[in-house]
Amino acid sequence: MSKPLDYENLNENVKKCQYAVRGELYLRASELQKEGKKIIFTNVGNPHALGQKPLTFPRQVIALCQAPFLLDDPNVGLVFPADTIARAKHYLSLTSGGLGAYSDSRGVPGVRKEIADFIERRDGYPSDPELIFLTDGASKGVMQILNSIIRGEQDGILVPVPQYPLYSATISLLGGSLVPYYLEETANWGLDIVNLRESVSQARSQGITVRAMVIINPGNPTGQCLSEANLKEVLQFCYQNNLVLLGDEVYQQNIYQDERPFISARKVLMDMGGPISKELQLVSFHTVSKGYWGECGQRGGYFEMTNIPPKTVEEIYKVASISLSPNVPGQIFLGLMVNPPKPGDISYERFVRESKGILESLRRRAQIMTDGFNSCRNVVCNFTEGAMYSFPQIRLPPKAIEAAKKAGKVPDVFYCLKLLEATGISTVPGSGFGQKEGVFHLRTTILPAEEDMPPIMTSFKKFNDEFMEQYEDYRGYSRM
Amino acid sequence: MSKPLDYENLNENVKKCQYAVRGELYLRASELQKEGKKIIFTNVGNPHALGQKPLTFPRQVIALCQAPFLLDDPNVGLVFPADTIARAKHYLSLTSGGLGAYSDSRGVPGVRKEIADFIERRDGYPSDPELIFLTDGASKGVMQILNSIIRGEQDGILVPVPQYPLYSATISLLGGSLVPYYLEETANWGLDIVNLRESVSQARSQGITVRAMVIINPGNPTGQCLSEANLKEVLQFCYQNNLVLLGDEVYQQNIYQDERPFISARKVLMDMGGPISKELQLVSFHTVSKGYWGECGQRGGYFEMTNIPPKTVEEIYKVASISLSPNVPGQIFLGLMVNPPKPGDISYERFVRESKGILESLRRRAQIMTDGFNSCRNVVCNFTEGAMYSFPQIRLPPKAIEAAKKAGKVPDVFYCLKLLEATGISTVPGSGFGQKEGVFHLRTTILPAEEDMPPIMTSFKKFNDEFMEQYEDYRGYSRM
Ligand SMILES: Cc1ncc(COP(=O)(O)O)c(C=O)c1O
Ligand SMILES: Cc1ncc(COP(=O)(O)O)c(C=O)c1O
Repeated sequence: MSKPLDYENLNENVKKCQYAVRGELYLRASELQKEGKKIIFTNVGNPHALGQKPLTFPRQVIALCQAPFLLDDPNVGLVFPADTIARAKHYLSLTSGGLGAYSDSRGVPGVRKEIADFIERRDGYPSDPELIFLTDGASKGVMQILNSIIRGEQDGILVPVPQYPLYSATISLLGGSLVPYYLEETANWGLDIVNLRESVSQARSQGITVRAMVIINPGNPTGQCLSEANLKEVLQFCYQNNLVLLGDEVYQQNIYQDERPFISARKVLMDMGGPISKELQLVSFHTVSKGYWGECGQRGGYFEMTNIPPKTVEEIYKVASISLSPNVPGQIFLGLMVNPPKPGDISYERFVRESKGILESLRRRAQIMTDGFNSCRNVVCNFTEGAMYSFPQIRLPPKAIEAAKKAGKVPDVFYCLKLLEATGISTVPGSGFGQKEGVFHLRTTILPAEEDMPPIMTSFKKFNDEFMEQYEDYRGYSRM
Repeated sequence: MSKPLDYENLNENVKKCQYAVRGELYLRASELQKEGKKIIFTNVGNPHALGQKPLTFPRQVIALCQAPFLLDDPNVGLVFPADTIARAKHYLSLTSGGLGAYSDSRGVPGVRKEIADFIERRDGYPSDPELIFLTDGASKGVMQILNSIIRGEQDGILVPVPQYPLYSATISLLGGSLVPYYLEETANWGLDIVNLRESVSQARSQGITVRAMVIINPGNPTGQCLSEANLKEVLQFCYQNNLVLLGDEVYQQNIYQDERPFISARKVLMDMGGPISKELQLVSFHTVSKGYWGECGQRGGYFEMTNIPPKTVEEIYKVASISLSPNVPGQIFLGLMVNPPKPGDISYERFVRESKGILESLRRRAQIMTDGFNSCRNVVCNFTEGAMYSFPQIRLPPKAIEAAKKAGKVPDVFYCLKLLEATGISTVPGSGFGQKEGVFHLRTTILPAEEDMPPIMTSFKKFNDEFMEQYEDYRGYSRM
């Protein structure tokens, strides 16, 4: 007799969901690593795993918060600068019970206040700490909000394609419907409002109630940065169609061009004024995992709610309470992120040196990678305007597609597996993010150390060009 | 027009769930605190919030892990003992990228190995690290497993009543059915297999497929410790009825009597041998939030799966991957918890002194509290055998019940609110955990500092005896 936790008896939504970032490619890479092969894990935006050093200042503060007994140690000044000691005392004073006590389920009130102040400085409009909830990474916040929205499979969520699979996986898990809208690869992965309209009409004709729209800005995996004009269109579109907008802005500090600096959906909404600015429902997400922090393992995130009524906020609070409290060290990291050292602070110069160093290097790496891909046979790649990824299109020859079919693999999975075996480069096939029928991509992060970039690109080029050589027959390519 | 995140449009399961530990009483207590009233937060098992000091050794290790640059600092030895430095190096060597990198979604392999070794030492049977998943606190693990089990409202989960509301809330949120089985207050909150049978038959007669059974051992809110014989009966019952057993063992270090030391469900199962030991599906939960650690804010938990088939483990892994990684510092805390300093280590004596001090004091506090409650008019209270709570029965006079009705409150909520206003003691009404019809309780933690206990109990007695005086008319009580 089959048992309750046998595969056939599991919740179908659990079985249905897909999560490519840690999918077949990642599992194979982990196996190869166990067998002793050197793997370059560019499957996930995980900077410290690829050697990025943590910023010194926040780590000093958090170390002191974890060891509050050091604050009375006469030798503490020998290893910790005075401003880190002051900051640690400050954050401990905001908690009741230090890092070992559950906080309020929404997060430590004082940290939420610091985030509200940051948002106000960034956007020029006040923000209410009561509408900011801290979470164990932005992922958990996204899941919580989608859980509040999705009532069943008739509820649709507009998600960009290609998209970060957190969205597709969570929508499956919650039993909702993903309504795709395609980003335009030929327009540097821009968001075209005409595509959006079509997606919504099509979903409606299938009986789906479209309830929310997700934007990822800067984009993952595409790296595009949305313009103010584009954001305005999106907001208007959501307003006309009665959608709540979920603004995934976790890469807001990762910008590698100067024409379109980051602008938050919330600022654009407030700038618009009028009824829309008082009515449109918006939830914005941020994290300590990205930017020049890259503190992924700490799991610190938040979401800010705009125009969400108090009764709903209460319900979201109640659900957050079930798991008691987001981790408190991650909350302190958020406080530090929105409140970095200021000019005149002892740690200021070092902090600026470290953070600038990381950002400038990321910008150079984005360029090296784009150029590298574009020098390869049958590969075309948009420039990474922001975020941490490169998403080249791989024009697979028909013979390669046939070979993949024979091997029982999706064509881009086939390509990426061969790349992994040949070079140790662990990427994610485009099919994990969604792409147009018959078009193939892969995603890689731009995170390997700068000095490792040229050899990685050389190794990629060698593999790719040989692969193309092997499968190309000059009869044609997969279409763009 | 109503908007997507207006209350009326939310997911009904979100609205349905209740979480009393942070419910009306907690919200009122927070308000009163804001108004300047001194509140004693005994609503949640949060030791550090009530002044318990963190253990020094693990905090030293984690501080060093957060500040790895200190490991090369010539002065580090002035503030950190040598064994903490060695341990920090050890844990950093287990991660790839330190505390700032996402780990594998199941947790750092080396830490999972340490946990497996701990389980083997504890139970005398080997444990497989591949079947141990780390989580942001045990709560998240429980939610994840229930999510895998529950397919819809026809799926029932046996939950003790009274119970910790994580279970009732999560079952509501996931749209399943809670099947209550009553613990016997007159038998020191023992688990009676006859009650279990009845509950299952009744649920089945209502068309419910009972799929899982939860035990909390030691119990929250009841404090009871299950005997080996009782656990055996439970395991046999689950086997006969094809249920997966969820063993919530987060209080395994919190034992305040000597007759029934903690024994894990897994050990009892393995001791039984034969087919049941190879077939019965069991998931066991543990955490760094409880014991003498009380590191609630760090959010470190794990679950261990026994007899769960690989395909199911894969699915659970996939779902864990959606939120990328449990927080890494919390994982290191788990490693430290299962691997405390050993005799001969520099930090050993201090660690033993601190941890013994906490446990012995908890044992005394359990006794002070039980005795205190039993000295009050119309209050009867079982001894807290384990965990961190006292759950006295309050025999409310009919007039008090009437007064509550008039005030639009559940009777025990009415009592607890009055207690809060009069004394600042923030408890949770028994109705939040479930209780028999017409019987009333409250739950308080035994966590206030030992020296604060006598005045708290005096203040409670004064309030209670006056309350009873006011409402008693010698016509009768609520029935036991
Ligand atoms: C677009 C996007 N959103 C959210 C996240 C989640 O980040 P975290 O949960 O670490 O805060 C990521 C992580 O890669 C991401 O790329
Ligand atoms: C019985 C029980 N299980 C699980 C938990 C959750 O603990 P955590 O999520 O902090 O590990 C608690 C917390 O109070 C509890 O009492």
